[in-house]
Amino acid sequence: MNNDSEGLNAVMEAIFNPASIAMVGVPEGMKMGRLFLMGLQSAGYRGNIYPVNPRIDTIDGLPVFRRVADIPGPVDLAVVLVPKKHLYSVIEQLGVIGTRAAVIFTAGFSELGAEGTDEQRQLAAHGRACGVRLIGPNCMGVYSSSARVSSFPSMPMDEGDTALVSGSGSLTSFIVLRGVARGLPFGKAVSFGNAADLVPSDFFSYLASDPKTSVISAYIEGVPEGRLFFDTLQKVTRMKPAVVWKAGLTGYGRKAAHSHTGALAGDASLWEGALAQAGAVQVANMDELLDAVMALKFIPPETGNRVAILSGPGGFAVAAADELEKSGLLLAQLSPTTRQRIASILPDTGISVVNPVDVGLSASVDFRLYTEPARAVMEDPGVDALLIIGGTFSAEANRSFMEELVAAKRATGKTLIMVDVPEFYFALTEKDLGRQFVSAHIPTFPSSARALWALKKVVDYGRFLGGPNRG
Amino acid sequence: MNNDSEGLNAVMEAIFNPASIAMVGVPEGMKMGRLFLMGLQSAGYRGNIYPVNPRIDTIDGLPVFRRVADIPGPVDLAVVLVPKKHLYSVIEQLGVIGTRAAVIFTAGFSELGAEGTDEQRQLAAHGRACGVRLIGPNCMGVYSSSARVSSFPSMPMDEGDTALVSGSGSLTSFIVLRGVARGLPFGKAVSFGNAADLVPSDFFSYLASDPKTSVISAYIEGVPEGRLFFDTLQKVTRMKPAVVWKAGLTGYGRKAAHSHTGALAGDASLWEGALAQAGAVQVANMDELLDAVMALKFIPPETGNRVAILSGPGGFAVAAADELEKSGLLLAQLSPTTRQRIASILPDTGISVVNPVDVGLSASVDFRLYTEPARAVMEDPGVDALLIIGGTFSAEANRSFMEELVAAKRATGKTLIMVDVPEFYFALTEKDLGRQFVSAHIPTFPSSARALWALKKVVDYGRFLGGPNRG
Repeated sequence: MNNDSEGLNAVMEAIFNPASIAMVGVPEGMKMGRLFLMGLQSAGYRGNIYPVNPRIDTIDGLPVFRRVADIPGPVDLAVVLVPKKHLYSVIEQLGVIGTRAAVIFTAGFSELGAEGTDEQRQLAAHGRACGVRLIGPNCMGVYSSSARVSSFPSMPMDEGDTALVSGSGSLTSFIVLRGVARGLPFGKAVSFGNAADLVPSDFFSYLASDPKTSVISAYIEGVPEGRLFFDTLQKVTRMKPAVVWKAGLTGYGRKAAHSHTGALAGDASLWEGALAQAGAVQVANMDELLDAVMALKFIPPETGNRVAILSGPGGFAVAAADELEKSGLLLAQLSPTTRQRIASILPDTGISVVNPVDVGLSASVDFRLYTEPARAVMEDPGVDALLIIGGTFSAEANRSFMEELVAAKRATGKTLIMVDVPEFYFALTEKDLGRQFVSAHIPTFPSSARALWALKKVVDYGRFLGGPNRG
Repeated sequence: MNNDSEGLNAVMEAIFNPASIAMVGVPEGMKMGRLFLMGLQSAGYRGNIYPVNPRIDTIDGLPVFRRVADIPGPVDLAVVLVPKKHLYSVIEQLGVIGTRAAVIFTAGFSELGAEGTDEQRQLAAHGRACGVRLIGPNCMGVYSSSARVSSFPSMPMDEGDTALVSGSGSLTSFIVLRGVARGLPFGKAVSFGNAADLVPSDFFSYLASDPKTSVISAYIEGVPEGRLFFDTLQKVTRMKPAVVWKAGLTGYGRKAAHSHTGALAGDASLWEGALAQAGAVQVANMDELLDAVMALKFIPPETGNRVAILSGPGGFAVAAADELEKSGLLLAQLSPTTRQRIASILPDTGISVVNPVDVGLSASVDFRLYTEPARAVMEDPGVDALLIIGGTFSAEANRSFMEELVAAKRATGKTLIMVDVPEFYFALTEKDLGRQFVSAHIPTFPSSARALWALKKVVDYGRFLGGPNRG
């Protein structure tokens, strides 16, 4: 076992931190395969890149080698773009030069039916016999921001501690891109395709012990390893949170998943039960996946479920109260002292000093009408988390607004969550207040519904871990 | 009755298309009330503005009048910002100079309890006795893009045929702003506050017969007119779609609504039943409201429920199939001919020719791999609506992509819906492909889940109208 896991770690290091990459079968024209090379080059990959193609001499300023055997140095990772009939010999040659892992982009296996499943099983056995572990086939490969590796052009290389294990190649890039846009950069992402050899639980095992990963997320259509996946997941969630988007849980989705990656998507209630038992945080789409990552990254799992809401726009306060009840969290009862403190700060009308606290519209032009009641609420022992919907119409006041809230969070140790309402700053040139809050480690969401949904996921994960949740 | 509705129409014209506006009690410093004047001026209002305040001579370059009686011309609409104790005399003076309608910003009525409810009832009676109809109290008033009227500064003045009737002043501006950002400008919006005199159904009646309004949306915490509201709504929805966000349907929300606008939010199941019976499209938050408007504006209610999905990224196709089943719509069966046509266009692997159609990743670099299968699907008699998730990595190709799809929609008369995935064009300078589709009258949504939810609302509305829905 120990040997195995050491071997697996070396393979994973070759995948996520390769010193050199061969690109076997790099195409001449502007085909999909070309994107892999563009991806590496635009990422600023600093290791050696060895393109291989018997019919061309140079590509994008790099010398092209006729055969794998001609490559003049060691190769950690190979990206294999050749037609199916050449796969066996290429993998054999890679084994000869000591390559530990190969991304098999080539499609046409289990996604086409039972025959393809047999074929890819044989391919995986061949890889293991040659000493080359395979990612795929039918996959897009690896993204690693610290190693500046990308299989897709123009990807941002912001370093982060979130990882992604994905059964869809294209979704990998989309999720990473949307994460970066929300201030949630990914450190490592892998598209495992049909998972003929390396399976999702291999990646989960590695990422669980990777000190640079704090949250693991996954898009899964199916897992070939069955029971082993859930056994692994159960160990992983004791070490760090795992967010799982299981696609194909409906009848329509199940069929679509099968023709996409050949996945046998399995029964919805079995999956949901097994994921819950393993302590995974279940999500149903890309935005939920990122919302859950946002919450799990910044909110400690021992957070309680008594929530206060504080809003400038009264309508948002009412709507958030509705969403709070739907989320299953509790509306915190503010103490008489807290209510008195808030009342002494706010004007007499157009406000509410009970939870949800409505600080009134004047707060848009005086940020202290937000921050001082917020501090009072966070100091109330009956409040575990405070959700704020608001902002001001001045860029300078927004800076103070943020600083005061960050200070209050630090002083009280309470969970603070922001709803980013870009319409507050529509007339300002500086429109990224939400991103600034995320940079200050305050989880930020596009709506109170999504914020409260995500907080509930953290509270539930805390309960799974046996944390002291009240209520 | 006829006289009444003629009278109401004249009042509404004064509200949404005023030739002159008095601003009574405009404050000296930077207080909330000042925003009303800034709103009118930044909107580029072309009529006469008459500020009134006994203590100042000029404001923002305008002469200020000491009393309403000093105003030198007729006043269609007044915005009243004076303290509660001056309201009676101001309304009386407005009546004397023939003002038809007044926005009462002043708060401190029914939102504070039973006494306030009595007070605002008396205030409304006083207004009617003086010939002045009241909007509010405790409201933000009017937005009318064609008349360039706004109660909030720096609002966009894009003209549109969507209307908004809102129980929250601040939400009014936020909804209009978010609508404009999505390519859904509002023509008229009103915040009715505590609705002591003019009630939501008055606005609904007017907007139903307003030729410049095609979709009516509403944010409602409560309605003082009870039964009359639903009777009116039932007539309205036969003329044009009405989208209703009823807040305060949960226990937490109900209490919050009461302290916000004094609304008695009512029982959730009664509201939901009555809204359904009246044919209103029910939504639960701001984004759902705009999603429903988007769909109802561009999709005819007689659209059938057989949906095809076409995606470049395979993961999105699987996810959309899951969402389709959850939405309650049907996955269209493509005919053998359609499948053959698609197969003849696409490469052999990494694709799917059954619904959901997965055109493969090569489509990102060759837009015809999207548009030609899309045309085949739209020409299939078994398909009512096509949802497309995709785009290309080139701005020029995206233009052709859009033109071909718009042409196919026109030629086939089928409903076409786009999912805007901004990550497709992250490397392009031109990032507004979604907005361009909306400009071409193609409804566009940020996710397949939201797109399919919204389409289902249209199909259900069509069923309510007795349209010929199949399936």
